Amino acid sequence: MRTSVYRFFTTDPADVSGLVRAIAEGMINPQSIVAIIGKTEGNGGINDFTRTLAMMALSQVLATHLDCRPELVEERVVLSFSGGSEGVAAPHILVFAVSGRAAEQAYPIKRLALASAHTRPFSAQEVGRMAMVRETARALTWLMHTLQVEPADVHLVQIKGAMPALDSATTENVRAEHLRCDMAWSRGASALGVALALGEVTESELSDDAINRDWSLYSSRASVSAKPLLRRSEMVLFANSCWWDGDLVIAHGVMQDIIDVPAIHAVLNQLGLQPVNGQLATADAEKVLAVFAKSDADPRGHIRHRRHTMWTDADISDMRYSRCVVSALLAGVTGETGIYVSTRAEHQGPQGGGPVAVIGYAS
Amino acid sequence: MRTSVYRFFTTDPADVSGLVRAIAEGMINPQSIVAIIGKTEGNGGINDFTRTLAMMALSQVLATHLDCRPELVEERVVLSFSGGSEGVAAPHILVFAVSGRAAEQAYPIKRLALASAHTRPFSAQEVGRMAMVRETARALTWLMHTLQVEPADVHLVQIKGAMPALDSATTENVRAEHLRCDMAWSRGASALGVALALGEVTESELSDDAINRDWSLYSSRASVSAKPLLRRSEMVLFANSCWWDGDLVIAHGVMQDIIDVPAIHAVLNQLGLQPVNGQLATADAEKVLAVFAKSDADPRGHIRHRRHTMWTDADISDMRYSRCVVSALLAGVTGETGIYVSTRAEHQGPQGGGPVAVIGYAS
Amino acid sequence: MRTSVYRFFTTDPADVSGLVRAIAEGMINPQSIVAIIGKTEGNGGINDFTRTLAMMALSQVLATHLDCRPELVEERVVLSFSGGSEGVAAPHILVFAVSGRAAEQAYPIKRLALASAHTRPFSAQEVGRMAMVRETARALTWLMHTLQVEPADVHLVQIKGAMPALDSATTENVRAEHLRCDMAWSRGASALGVALALGEVTESELSDDAINRDWSLYSSRASVSAKPLLRRSEMVLFANSCWWDGDLVIAHGVMQDIIDVPAIHAVLNQLGLQPVNGQLATADAEKVLAVFAKSDADPRGHIRHRRHTMWTDADISDMRYSRCVVSALLAGVTGETGIYVSTRAEHQGPQGGGPVAVIGYAS
Amino acid sequence: MRTSVYRFFTTDPADVSGLVRAIAEGMINPQSIVAIIGKTEGNGGINDFTRTLAMMALSQVLATHLDCRPELVEERVVLSFSGGSEGVAAPHILVFAVSGRAAEQAYPIKRLALASAHTRPFSAQEVGRMAMVRETARALTWLMHTLQVEPADVHLVQIKGAMPALDSATTENVRAEHLRCDMAWSRGASALGVALALGEVTESELSDDAINRDWSLYSSRASVSAKPLLRRSEMVLFANSCWWDGDLVIAHGVMQDIIDVPAIHAVLNQLGLQPVNGQLATADAEKVLAVFAKSDADPRGHIRHRRHTMWTDADISDMRYSRCVVSALLAGVTGETGIYVSTRAEHQGPQGGGPVAVIGYAS
Ligand SMILES: [Ca+2]
Ligand SMILES: [Ca+2]
Ligand SMILES: [Ca+2]
Ligand SMILES: [Ca+2]
Repeated sequence: MRTSVYRFFTTDPADVSGLVRAIAEGMINPQSIVAIIGKTEGNGGINDFTRTLAMMALSQVLATHLDCRPELVEERVVLSFSGGSEGVAAPHILVFAVSGRAAEQAYPIKRLALASAHTRPFSAQEVGRMAMVRETARALTWLMHTLQVEPADVHLVQIKGAMPALDSATTENVRAEHLRCDMAWSRGASALGVALALGEVTESELSDDAINRDWSLYSSRASVSAKPLLRRSEMVLFANSCWWDGDLVIAHGVMQDIIDVPAIHAVLNQLGLQPVNGQLATADAEKVLAVFAKSDADPRGHIRHRRHTMWTDADISDMRYSRCVVSALLAGVTGETGIYVSTRAEHQGPQGGGPVAVIGYAS
Repeated sequence: MRTSVYRFFTTDPADVSGLVRAIAEGMINPQSIVAIIGKTEGNGGINDFTRTLAMMALSQVLATHLDCRPELVEERVVLSFSGGSEGVAAPHILVFAVSGRAAEQAYPIKRLALASAHTRPFSAQEVGRMAMVRETARALTWLMHTLQVEPADVHLVQIKGAMPALDSATTENVRAEHLRCDMAWSRGASALGVALALGEVTESELSDDAINRDWSLYSSRASVSAKPLLRRSEMVLFANSCWWDGDLVIAHGVMQDIIDVPAIHAVLNQLGLQPVNGQLATADAEKVLAVFAKSDADPRGHIRHRRHTMWTDADISDMRYSRCVVSALLAGVTGETGIYVSTRAEHQGPQGGGPVAVIGYAS
Repeated sequence: MRTSVYRFFTTDPADVSGLVRAIAEGMINPQSIVAIIGKTEGNGGINDFTRTLAMMALSQVLATHLDCRPELVEERVVLSFSGGSEGVAAPHILVFAVSGRAAEQAYPIKRLALASAHTRPFSAQEVGRMAMVRETARALTWLMHTLQVEPADVHLVQIKGAMPALDSATTENVRAEHLRCDMAWSRGASALGVALALGEVTESELSDDAINRDWSLYSSRASVSAKPLLRRSEMVLFANSCWWDGDLVIAHGVMQDIIDVPAIHAVLNQLGLQPVNGQLATADAEKVLAVFAKSDADPRGHIRHRRHTMWTDADISDMRYSRCVVSALLAGVTGETGIYVSTRAEHQGPQGGGPVAVIGYAS
Repeated sequence: MRTSVYRFFTTDPADVSGLVRAIAEGMINPQSIVAIIGKTEGNGGINDFTRTLAMMALSQVLATHLDCRPELVEERVVLSFSGGSEGVAAPHILVFAVSGRAAEQAYPIKRLALASAHTRPFSAQEVGRMAMVRETARALTWLMHTLQVEPADVHLVQIKGAMPALDSATTENVRAEHLRCDMAWSRGASALGVALALGEVTESELSDDAINRDWSLYSSRASVSAKPLLRRSEMVLFANSCWWDGDLVIAHGVMQDIIDVPAIHAVLNQLGLQPVNGQLATADAEKVLAVFAKSDADPRGHIRHRRHTMWTDADISDMRYSRCVVSALLAGVTGETGIYVSTRAEHQGPQGGGPVAVIGYAS
């Protein structure tokens, strides 16, 4: 088995021309596509419909090739879009395809492997609580088992966290202030589920009370966003596996705060890449195929003891600022603006910081 | 003579507590203050009144000590504020003071020198034309002469460009489309004036037509903003001079595009500072006292052949994005978020790029 | 012939459920649909993709019923969406259908008639000039002829103005400052084309120089937006005709400035509706089926000699403010928030004001 | 005793020229100024420093005349500024002055009376709870007693609600989720205090649990904003009193929802003013001297069963939208854009609606 990654820069959220051409030219077999992850130029908020537009456009393309109705494409391919290409970030889509057959024996070097899974459906009361943590961990553990990878091989777990609609039983029986069915809770519990499955935290450290409160607990590999009305969480696991070949590998690290450039260097170093005067040379920049990060505008209002104003600006959301900052740093170091940063990173890296993962060509 | 620089982080635009305390404790002699330059947390646009607030608060403080009316403070001290602390930038003020007496002979090493000047008043028709270029060059040349520095010693010329009110004669005689009395033209002509005085362009290359059109002409040391209703341009010259002592030096460079991290490294290297894994170590970060840059969201819509969306976002101005990006990069490399970035850099560095200057303690 | 208008309030820009249901239930014959005009909840700027999303979703629905490919739907049905439901405006779509056959003799009372047309394709050099004015007038005159209506019967001409791509010949031969191929010029020239065809201005008053300069010239019935890359302008004519029956009529008026509430009352009065204490009673509000207006934040910076801040706010566009204001007033008077306001009204009503049209059930 | 009201339109938040001139010309005796209430062109959020700027500029002016230090002016004059002049609202200040001596017997007709008071300082734990409700009611009752007015004579109670800093005892002993020291709670409890003092609710209906939960309880005359770090609430009471003379009267009403235009008409009718075709004629508009309202973007997401998007827009705050809407309606009906609208109206009018008060010349 091998993973192929194709990156297409887009002219707008509905631009599917790159994928259409690649399929037409036989470069991509549509049946092999497992996931499409992309960055669109919306605001990333509730009223960001660029994600819907991108998914509708892609579903139309894939429906033809997969011979199904557009609304059923998502049952076969994970479509995951994050709005917000603030600053230098170039809107793009990443098409992940898997081909070949299972290896009969391990390869000498590990290569990029990936697979996707769903959790079971959640009730609104479970969101943001241990039930969600445990079920997320269970689904991830099953996925690692399927891919035959160890926790140490896992470098990124991309999750769209569930946020089921409130049913009438819930709204009657649970006081609003006791309900955790919002985006922050969905993200926090999902990330701790990853941390649990990967052994980054122990179950004894976890409790309903610890979620979105004890920030010393976190995963260095979870990247979670939450989606209103989603009943079950979707996850894509990215790992390096000795059962997979190909020419791609993935590495990860954790930015301890939002200006932790050395953490970015460390991730590139794992891929055999060394910035010169702070930036990859052009030839090395071309070895970087995908860059993922989560950003956090530190809610304590300070970065290295200096005040920042990302939370007190009533005109522009902290979300737009922190994505802008982290994508600027990643672009500055890699020399490449095709950067995927999504924001609000509860239990994803420490408070104020977040995970970074890079997929590159093996040196 | 020696230059002292004091940096005060502020809690809001009216926060003058740091300066008040420093004067009260005898650390700063108010009579020695030549200029106060600061970054406030506004939007940087026409309706950014944080600059007015900061200047009103500082004028009140200085008026007491300089024994003049608050509205006359600006005749004695340059007050220059730039709104917009997007992303990680920490609002702060920099107080520049000059003390001591003229050296009788040159020192063996050059140290930070500064002085300020005004141009003559401009008419609205002169703004954005060769008259402004030449008068700006003249004032700067006179200032270099006064400070006994060569063009090569000049590392930053901070200008507030004139934008006089239209008089009725002008509005009657000049068709609106032929008038250049706006911010972009004021910045462009002022920057070319600096380039001319510093020998970065020759007069034969310049013409009314070249201004804000031929982007191959630029200064690597001009940092210009424009101020509506200002009749004459104000400038502060920062140079290294062998006639000045003290413990501070300044260096500059030019970012060729908005993610030109190596250019930032090069400036730090001139100060004897070497980032490790892309960032100054804490001890070195503390040697950085002031960081100035101009940012440009490339108007051609691309950065290194990738699309960016800073100009097509109807919700957030390109100005806020480009400041956010450049201050993130400068903070990422220096490890310090007390960064001054102002935006729209016509003829200040190449199109899409801009100058950077850093004041640090001499190693 | 008769016109039917169906109004569907939407839950998001991709919500087509109302139309789908109405077609399924036989209420709407998809073959009879002439135009769909709607208000989506975007920002109305260049990066407002809610319009694209709505049009993609509707094209998918109509493609099935019209038995054509989705991208060909627009050749048969005018799809016209305006982003921006600021304030109280409720996002909605209006489906205009025409049924029945041509009357053999005139009816005693006039009823709502409509038809659509295209101009010929424009070159970039023609946009904003007399060529565009004349061709727009020609197309509208032809349309009036087709519908057998007089200028006095015309109450609304909804136009999507052309803005063709620049070809290389143009960019080489025309200095950028002499080109008028932008949104404001496309709107201005199109509106004057309507004014010319309707006899609101005479050809002798018009010239290239008068466009977007002599604001005394305007149409009281043009409602124009411009669309980048559109080669030919699209128009929908709304009139009352004695050759059409049905139960709908249209009336129009002109707001002289942005708070001209009496102008709104006058339009309603023409429909036999009389606000009580400033607002239609519920039963009368239900007779209002569609409300169209163009808004203008007066570029002179004043409303009735008082300053307004819609143009000096660097955080929020004048476009969002003026739509918010005019839709608030229309909702306040009609008691109905299903209001369609689009903005920037060059030569559509006087400077600072704009046209209003209301479709209602005949009393 | 008589109340005089002077309205000055401003060119920017620091513009005090109108007041300065009026004092210089002897029109206003600075000693007689009781309160200055104004609308500035900020965003109305935490980072809106236009209010600080206006207050700093006014304090400087008044300090000279009241012979005190600028920072002590607020001990003698209530300075209350609301940021946000969205849409048509014209930034302005209203200077309230009281002159003459106490009447010995009642006048035949009631005229505008006003007075100001403070509550006692609150602890952070008291904010948003019954302690705040009761103390606010007590202070208001005392003020009515002082002015010799009945609850029915009170038409507006303008409050700046306390929001004291958290002390360490509080942060240690009270779990964050049990603390109510934020703006919404301060507004809600203060408004219920007004309702209690005016007999609009009974004490038996009130409880900690009812605050910001039972929206059937509200005042029709409270207008409350909250100010971080304010220890005690400030209030200004506006009433009509038979012990006061002059030529001004005040009336109030309640908008039941955000487009309740008839409620605005009703208030004007009380002042003897009758809009014609929905708007006051010019001569009547000139009788309107001050218009106050509180706006609410209905948090249930609907207005008269239609969806609105004021809460789901991630780019622009509901606060800016609702102020824009209500000031448009008030300007549309009165024909005057000098409107003061502040937003978020918990227990001030019903949910989605808010109080309106108008000061006018007696007919
Ligand atoms: Ca984090
Ligand atoms: Ca530049
Ligand atoms: Ca107009
Ligand atoms: Ca309310």
